[in-house]
Formats: sequence, C-alpha cells, structure tokens
Amino acid sequence: MTPQDMLDVAVEEARKGLAEGGIPIGAALFSRDGVLLGSGHNRRVQDDDPSVHGETDAFRAAGRQRNYRSTVMVTTLSPCWYCSGLVRQFNIGAVVIGEAQTFSGGHDWLAENGVEVTVLSDERCIGMMTDFIAARPELWLEDIGE
Amino acid sequence: MTPQDMLDVAVEEARKGLAEGGIPIGAALFSRDGVLLGSGHNRRVQDDDPSVHGETDAFRAAGRQRNYRSTVMVTTLSPCWYCSGLVRQFNIGAVVIGEAQTFSGGHDWLAENGVEVTVLSDERCIGMMTDFIAARPELWLEDIGE
Repeated sequence: MTPQDMLDVAVEEARKGLAEGGIPIGAALFSRDGVLLGSGHNRRVQDDDPSVHGETDAFRAAGRQRNYRSTVMVTTLSPCWYCSGLVRQFNIGAVVIGEAQTFSGGHDWLAENGVEVTVLSDERCIGMMTDFIAARPELWLEDIGE
Repeated sequence: MTPQDMLDVAVEEARKGLAEGGIPIGAALFSRDGVLLGSGHNRRVQDDDPSVHGETDAFRAAGRQRNYRSTVMVTTLSPCWYCSGLVRQFNIGAVVIGEAQTFSGGHDWLAENGVEVTVLSDERCIGMMTDFIAARPELWLEDIGE
C-alpha cells in the first residue's frame, strides 16, 4: 500500500465531513503493512465538539492498541499541535500528510523527534482546504484556536 | 479563586475516575476569573477510549469557546504531549499542575512557548498516581504510549 493509497481513505473522510457541513479534514490510522485500524474526520460542527479533530477521531476509532510504533497516521492536512502531540505521545511511527500548504502544524517537530514524516502535495487536499478557508474563515480560525 | 481551589475540582474528577476503575487523572477548564467551564477525567478504561485524557475531556466538556487565551487548564498531573499540544494549539493562557513528580510531560515546552505554568506539589495527586502506577503499571504504560 502506497502513502497515496492510504491518503485516499483520509480524503474520503474529509469529503464525508464536508458533506455533513463540517470542516473537511480526514485521517486514518494504518498498520505498517496496510491494514486500516480506524478512520475519522473533524466533527467540531457536527457534534459541536472541539476535541474531535481528524487525527483524534481516527485514533479513537482504532480503539486501544498496545503499541503504535508500527502504525502510520495519514491525514489530509499538516497536523496541528494537538494532533502532533498525539502522534508524539503515543509513539506513532510515521505520518503521511496530504498537504502542508494551507496550514503548517507540528510536522517538522515530529520529524525532529524521530517520526517518519511524508508530506505529499495532493491537489484534492489543497483544493478542499483552500475552498473551505475562503468560504468559512471564522470557523477555520476557531478550529485552530486563533 | 486560587490555583489550589481550581485543583480541588481536578482532584475530585481524578477520584471519580479511580472509583470507576479508571486511571486517576482529572482536569478542569476555568475562566481566569474562576468560572468553571468544564471538567473531566481520563476514561480509557471506562469508555475503552484511548483519546479521552483528563485534559481533553475537560476541554470537550467546556464546549466550543471562541477564545481560550483567558482560560486556565488545571490538571492533577503534568500534561502529556497530547494534552500539551492541546493547550498550545488552542492558546490556553495558563496551566495549573497538581504534580510533575510521578510523570513529566510537556509543561516546560509550554512555558517556553508563552503559557503561564504553575506546578504545585500536591500530596493528594502524588499519592494517587504513585499508588496507581504501583498497582497497574501495564495500564499506566498503555496510557502514555510506552
């Protein structure tokens, strides 16, 4: 399974979120050998819950895992500090990022701390976030605490 | 309202968690002027949900806030990277920590990044975590991803 294949699952989640009227960021947690452990998307709007980012939703959906070293978190957007902290604390081994152009979170910090980071420049991800930020700037700023 | 008064609410949450058979870490989000916005505790065991740490549960319970600069997160234990990332991303202005002796997370990093950090050495918090780690070491290591 390629990083791009894994990203497809996160993009599908982001699209679901958008269709629900939410913030279009999706994520998925895979094992290194490509087994999908869990996926999810931002649900600030849908659940009125600021704690559900794409990555935390995917992490939750994967349930309790004894070890995350051999897992890969794939996300449509560079992980914010909250989600970067999740990756670091649980020693998730690798992160695949759809794009880091519309927002840049903690992915350099993760790389400095031993996480294998791959940043793609996926046009679907860039397009979705560009359109969303233009359409709902106040909601976007709320979601990143600004 | 003193930091110690705020900590009392987090300690009460940690005790609830312990009584439920869970990991005894509690937290609360207050406004600077002492209004309780939300409180919660770790529910890994109770909900079988690894994403619910004390701080993320308190943050969720507080609902959507437009700005966190004037809020205070109080927690019984030094926040792990996941919860430290939450504080940093949402620009929570201050953190009050019951103890950082049994576990030291990202509180120095938060202080370096402009968060007002107060570390108490609360005997109730130290006692609860010391007893818990001795009694359930495997559960504790699971909760911090080790």
